[in-house]
Amino acid sequence: MQSISVYDSLTGQKVPFKPIKEGFLSMYVCGPTVYSYVHLGNLRTFLSFDIVYRYFLHLGYKVRYVRNITDVGHLEDDADFGEDKISKKARIESLEPMEIAQKYTNDFHDMLKKINNLPPSIEPTATGHILEQIEIIEDLIQKGFAYQTNGSVYFDVKKYNQTEDYGILSGRNIEELLNHSRDLEGQSEKRNPQDFALWKKASPSHIMRWNSPFGVGFPGWHLECTVMSTKYLGETFDIHGGGMDLKFPHHECEIAQGKAAYGKKPVNYWLHANMLTLNGKKMSKSTGNTILPMELFSGDNAFFEKPISPEVLRFFMLQAHYRSVLDLSNDAILAAEKGFEKLKAAYFWLLESSQAEKQSSIDIHSWKQKCYQAMNDDFNTPILISHLFEGVKYIDGLKSNKQTLSQEDLILFQETFKEPSNRENFASGLAYLKSQPRAICSPPPKQFP
Amino acid sequence: MQSISVYDSLTGQKVPFKPIKEGFLSMYVCGPTVYSYVHLGNLRTFLSFDIVYRYFLHLGYKVRYVRNITDVGHLEDDADFGEDKISKKARIESLEPMEIAQKYTNDFHDMLKKINNLPPSIEPTATGHILEQIEIIEDLIQKGFAYQTNGSVYFDVKKYNQTEDYGILSGRNIEELLNHSRDLEGQSEKRNPQDFALWKKASPSHIMRWNSPFGVGFPGWHLECTVMSTKYLGETFDIHGGGMDLKFPHHECEIAQGKAAYGKKPVNYWLHANMLTLNGKKMSKSTGNTILPMELFSGDNAFFEKPISPEVLRFFMLQAHYRSVLDLSNDAILAAEKGFEKLKAAYFWLLESSQAEKQSSIDIHSWKQKCYQAMNDDFNTPILISHLFEGVKYIDGLKSNKQTLSQEDLILFQETFKEPSNRENFASGLAYLKSQPRAICSPPPKQFP
Repeated sequence: MQSISVYDSLTGQKVPFKPIKEGFLSMYVCGPTVYSYVHLGNLRTFLSFDIVYRYFLHLGYKVRYVRNITDVGHLEDDADFGEDKISKKARIESLEPMEIAQKYTNDFHDMLKKINNLPPSIEPTATGHILEQIEIIEDLIQKGFAYQTNGSVYFDVKKYNQTEDYGILSGRNIEELLNHSRDLEGQSEKRNPQDFALWKKASPSHIMRWNSPFGVGFPGWHLECTVMSTKYLGETFDIHGGGMDLKFPHHECEIAQGKAAYGKKPVNYWLHANMLTLNGKKMSKSTGNTILPMELFSGDNAFFEKPISPEVLRFFMLQAHYRSVLDLSNDAILAAEKGFEKLKAAYFWLLESSQAEKQSSIDIHSWKQKCYQAMNDDFNTPILISHLFEGVKYIDGLKSNKQTLSQEDLILFQETFKEPSNRENFASGLAYLKSQPRAICSPPPKQFP
Repeated sequence: MQSISVYDSLTGQKVPFKPIKEGFLSMYVCGPTVYSYVHLGNLRTFLSFDIVYRYFLHLGYKVRYVRNITDVGHLEDDADFGEDKISKKARIESLEPMEIAQKYTNDFHDMLKKINNLPPSIEPTATGHILEQIEIIEDLIQKGFAYQTNGSVYFDVKKYNQTEDYGILSGRNIEELLNHSRDLEGQSEKRNPQDFALWKKASPSHIMRWNSPFGVGFPGWHLECTVMSTKYLGETFDIHGGGMDLKFPHHECEIAQGKAAYGKKPVNYWLHANMLTLNGKKMSKSTGNTILPMELFSGDNAFFEKPISPEVLRFFMLQAHYRSVLDLSNDAILAAEKGFEKLKAAYFWLLESSQAEKQSSIDIHSWKQKCYQAMNDDFNTPILISHLFEGVKYIDGLKSNKQTLSQEDLILFQETFKEPSNRENFASGLAYLKSQPRAICSPPPKQFP
């Protein structure tokens, strides 16, 4: 069994990964709030955890990978203020909120499939777990960590912090938070400004609402992840992933909720994927410095000189480590395309090759081990890719007869490079670099239009 | 506006369709129980309602089409006996039940996409509406139509039948039902054998369970459809669809639940799609006379001499009216393929044609009207297809210069045949006959492998 190191955001250190149960991995990743088309930054995050998922599968782990769909409760402002994102969009588009959620869930699935992400083992929805959310709120109230006020329920951060450490993940100091909190409408019903909503009273105009012992309302955003992760993975599980921007307050709140409800830390390793920028700047709708995945793929945009295929985007993203900021630009992605074509050409040549000699002039075993070492080192895909390009040099050497491989080594070289032939076997080989599924059920387009 | 007639299973008559709200259609279709790969007969049912959906969209209706996913509560035996289908499969496959539901939901979506069905507006899950199911049960108990016994809750059919008509849809007589009911384990807790479960007590081994005022358990299968249809479409909605096999008891129970809870009939028009047989016999796992969609598409089966493409399957199915039994066989589908190729070739020739004359020798307006008449007559796709083949004859006449069309008529002819160029516009033209989406987001494979 390979031994993997992961960078744990909570301790800020790279540590050896040890699963709760040998040979099993439990992983939860925060999914999208489905009120608009998925943006490229999100795609990068989900791709990062697709790599983690596939690598563990490849190593023979039995993996339960849970990634949720937030279809209610995510307010416009993290401070429990403003309108529910999906309800607002429903009002603007004159649709039932669940039509909005469905439309953008479909887009999300289409785009992830396009860049060849595997679907998670379970993809639960927030609205699908209202009962469980109500039950944990009742429990938190009973334990003194939550209080009702004016039809809403808040988590009492100060109370929690008396015995536990709120800020442990994000490194924030609760005193500092108190000083920096804004005075917003509706915040006055909280005991302290850093308290966060577990249940929000629904205003008469709010279309997404459920009955509860606390009154008619809807659950808070942070709570759903605690409920769904523990329901399907247990009170403590191996890996929790998400975008860097979710560290605070979202993941901080998850830790507090889990600890308060179950008396134990919910997660053994916190992994956070970094940002994607566009032409050196943060992507943002308000500045116009933004592009949708489908605009990138179709070429219908002002940033790129030609359409970019999903497999090139995937390869481009994997050229950076998931914890580094990655900048997307015309030049960078065209360079990635060139590199990817070169890699593919060499790879296809290799697969067809039967050019075996008595002796090997290349040490394929050691090359293979270096590939695994890269992945074992916190899923370092850029280093892995550099080894694959070293492999391309070997292939060039074989082509020009300057290098030789024995029959056995040739097969090992091919197998290591090899793509899987069907969905069941998907995670084998180094195929997590390749885009487009090859399953019987989902034949890839021959060429992207 | 075209005037549509539909065959209403409840009255057993073809009647003019009148929507509740002019220009709007509310439609609910019973979706799959996701405990195994979707079978071909189900595909036919969902395709039938895809046609209904697309035709109303094509006519400019604003449609809310709700199709559920049954991820809990469907017992092996319709008489509320036996194990939950998903829990049982989870036990066999050693997975969490929601992993089973996810796996087969993914397959279901893949297969529907393959045969170019549009996704519904909302696709709710049974587990996503536990709270709503509990609330309606409380209401039914309060109204005297349901009773608790031994941790389960049953609908009191005899009580309901005192004032209403149980059997109205299926034409069954309640006395007859009483005489034909079997004596099964666990049935004794019912007041009458025809009573059906609204809530079932979970045995200790049952993995899917929720807390409720009635005890720990899970909702009955029939109830979810009442809850989800009325939640998203209102207490009475336009069309309820499903497979013929769901008429009794499932749809009969839905009528009883809706009437008992809301005091009005839940559905204005009941539409039922007929069976698909294989080589003249009912498909059945136990006799081996069965084939999965993916086996048909891949050619990996003992029934067909070559792989059948999803678009040919779609075309084949539309050659029969949705209310007729359709038999799938090697000869029949090869004949369909031949016809489809002929139709496509003519269609592509027509799209490219600019061969306009001063006068038309063909009455395109009347041909177009006949196409619409076919669809208006209870979505009669085989008649529509026969008109399209009449169109092919016209095209042959144009090719050989035996027929002529004016510029205006040529454009009308092309437009009527034309396929849409993107997803938004998907329902226009006669494109519902064509398989494979052409959306930017989902480019079709050039060729099926």
